[in-house]
Amino acid sequence: MNLPLGYRYATVYAGIRKQQRDDLALIVADRGANAAAVFTTNVVQAAPVRLARKHLRASKGRVAAVLVNAGNANCATRTGERVALESVKAVAKALRTKTHFVLPASTGVIGVELEARLIAEAVPKLAAALSPNGFEAVAHAMLTTDTRLKIASEEIALRRGKVRVAGMTKGSGMIHPGMATTLAFVMTDAMAEPSLLRRMLVNATERSYNSLSVDGDMSTNDMAVLMANGASAAGPLDGNSRGLLEEAVIRVMESLAQQIASDGEGARKLIVVRTSGFRSVEDARKAARSIANSPLVKTAIAGSDPNWGRILSAAGYSGAAFDPGDVDIFLQDVQVCGKGVAAEYDEPALKRRLDEAKVEMRVAIRGRGKGEARFFTCDFTEGYIQINGSYRT
Amino acid sequence: MNLPLGYRYATVYAGIRKQQRDDLALIVADRGANAAAVFTTNVVQAAPVRLARKHLRASKGRVAAVLVNAGNANCATRTGERVALESVKAVAKALRTKTHFVLPASTGVIGVELEARLIAEAVPKLAAALSPNGFEAVAHAMLTTDTRLKIASEEIALRRGKVRVAGMTKGSGMIHPGMATTLAFVMTDAMAEPSLLRRMLVNATERSYNSLSVDGDMSTNDMAVLMANGASAAGPLDGNSRGLLEEAVIRVMESLAQQIASDGEGARKLIVVRTSGFRSVEDARKAARSIANSPLVKTAIAGSDPNWGRILSAAGYSGAAFDPGDVDIFLQDVQVCGKGVAAEYDEPALKRRLDEAKVEMRVAIRGRGKGEARFFTCDFTEGYIQINGSYRT
Repeated sequence: MNLPLGYRYATVYAGIRKQQRDDLALIVADRGANAAAVFTTNVVQAAPVRLARKHLRASKGRVAAVLVNAGNANCATRTGERVALESVKAVAKALRTKTHFVLPASTGVIGVELEARLIAEAVPKLAAALSPNGFEAVAHAMLTTDTRLKIASEEIALRRGKVRVAGMTKGSGMIHPGMATTLAFVMTDAMAEPSLLRRMLVNATERSYNSLSVDGDMSTNDMAVLMANGASAAGPLDGNSRGLLEEAVIRVMESLAQQIASDGEGARKLIVVRTSGFRSVEDARKAARSIANSPLVKTAIAGSDPNWGRILSAAGYSGAAFDPGDVDIFLQDVQVCGKGVAAEYDEPALKRRLDEAKVEMRVAIRGRGKGEARFFTCDFTEGYIQINGSYRT
Repeated sequence: MNLPLGYRYATVYAGIRKQQRDDLALIVADRGANAAAVFTTNVVQAAPVRLARKHLRASKGRVAAVLVNAGNANCATRTGERVALESVKAVAKALRTKTHFVLPASTGVIGVELEARLIAEAVPKLAAALSPNGFEAVAHAMLTTDTRLKIASEEIALRRGKVRVAGMTKGSGMIHPGMATTLAFVMTDAMAEPSLLRRMLVNATERSYNSLSVDGDMSTNDMAVLMANGASAAGPLDGNSRGLLEEAVIRVMESLAQQIASDGEGARKLIVVRTSGFRSVEDARKAARSIANSPLVKTAIAGSDPNWGRILSAAGYSGAAFDPGDVDIFLQDVQVCGKGVAAEYDEPALKRRLDEAKVEMRVAIRGRGKGEARFFTCDFTEGYIQINGSYRT
């Protein structure tokens, strides 16, 4: 891991989740950091989401720490507002900073009261345990139904020095990834204004989290935060450096999103769906999302079955406009459908290639349409496949 | 079964599917019938769908027979048009009727050429085997991934005599029921004009097939046909009789749709989602569909877990507008959420009630909104539940 300078991390078991596993974590930017965040669009929003949004506005994009708990979403509760506020107040006190420089984030069950006392008691222990080496421990502590740790980092060499970007996320692939809470915290030691961070985060989110199986299906607690503390030696960024930093942030967040897609229940394969030649980007996204979200497509891939008819059908009901006679479909770069009907290909050879851990499918509409999109999803295994995966044979 | 008079049925194994199980079926209205049909809205449409639509237009809503094959969708094929036409021509010849009085329907794999010869050779055998008792055999022959026969019937007493309505369907629940082909054939011996049948079919489809987990997600081959041959003694229908007939058609199609919902992979429970108090029917439908389509809700029900937070969250990202503080949620008529936060209830007692084969969930928005909706779905069992079903405990 290329960890950015100037951040410290700590975790503790506060007794929020029944299972005795660290459930409270703290990320601290020692000298503070500029920050941008994106939040769930669900009309039901957890108290920590509302408070984090308010704090970021009050601080004009400045943060000292992020406090994360797993095991309780602190959503749809009577005491939510108060608990979220008391929690960050405890952190602010321990770190000797202002309350609005601390962002809360929660994930877990909805509708169960979260005990503020548990957090207040644990915060001093957290503050005492802060260490530059706690990055992975925090990434572990915020997992819920996830089966794997999800972290990524990049280091880029700028003219005046190196800068680092490191991110952690939680959220398991399942069928609609957006439905389990997704949290993402990305830190860099580059120097960047909140407005630049905001632009980078929005672009990177569009290319990563919003391109996971189903976007729009957001939990009550989703939150992604990008922080930049300027602790590297690289100094202020020129235009070129900004581009390089944005690319690094995108790569980190794409990696995190792909790790979520791969962590589906029983999933063995990452599926990347690419669409092109549609009349608009919107149509291309509709088609890609519909394919990525199709259980029939996903079971076919689990069974390494090049059943392109299901891909064609999923594009067909997506709402995207196209002429079925213009459709070419490729699996692992092998053409399986040309002009809407079967192409000739070596099926045993393709089936072997579909056994790989990453499967690419491409739906290209002939003509001059420029609309392109890409979505990530995973294959569907388990009992579901018993009915659908071998349907064709 | 209250089978309508004047229909005969036959099935045969034509060699279309590899498994030796009847795969070709014929429904014949001996003296013809008036008919209405609804077809898939997928932009990719199978050849039999296109031909059936054309025939029904040419015949002005008059049919003599429906030919159904399973094992091959005759979609996205080079020879699709010709094969569909040759198939119905063979039937017309055997029944001594005109080609445009015969509707083709297919279900099975997409993109594989269907051999016209198999059907042409089998049709004379089919015609010879026609019998008033073959209703269930036809319902069996058209099944593909289904695990159960799906049939329903009604008998209603009108002033001048009884009329009968009987229907059969195929389509398995899975996650998005609409994605596997749905076929539905509903016959009555009442006397009804095509325009009346059309109105009944559209209303009944809205309340049944379009209220299954995800509507709009349609396969390339979906088709529902309502036929009326006037063979009963009831004669022409007065206004009141029309209403009774429509109600019977709706009950039959609702039953068929619920049977599809219940036939999900590993499903043990039918889930009925009701929403009310929304600003519009559209919002109520969005919320109901979103809940019915939520794997997290469906796994919770599989585990008899009254995890209403997931229901609230699914309504929240549905796109429907509402104030979370106005939400009441009921499971099996037990209130689990009031004004957006947990209600007091006897959890062990409710968990036992969630073990029942039919689970009703109701999301009611306080206020004066009149928007109501109802959706059918099934629970999610199997491996999926191992991760999500016991999340809360």
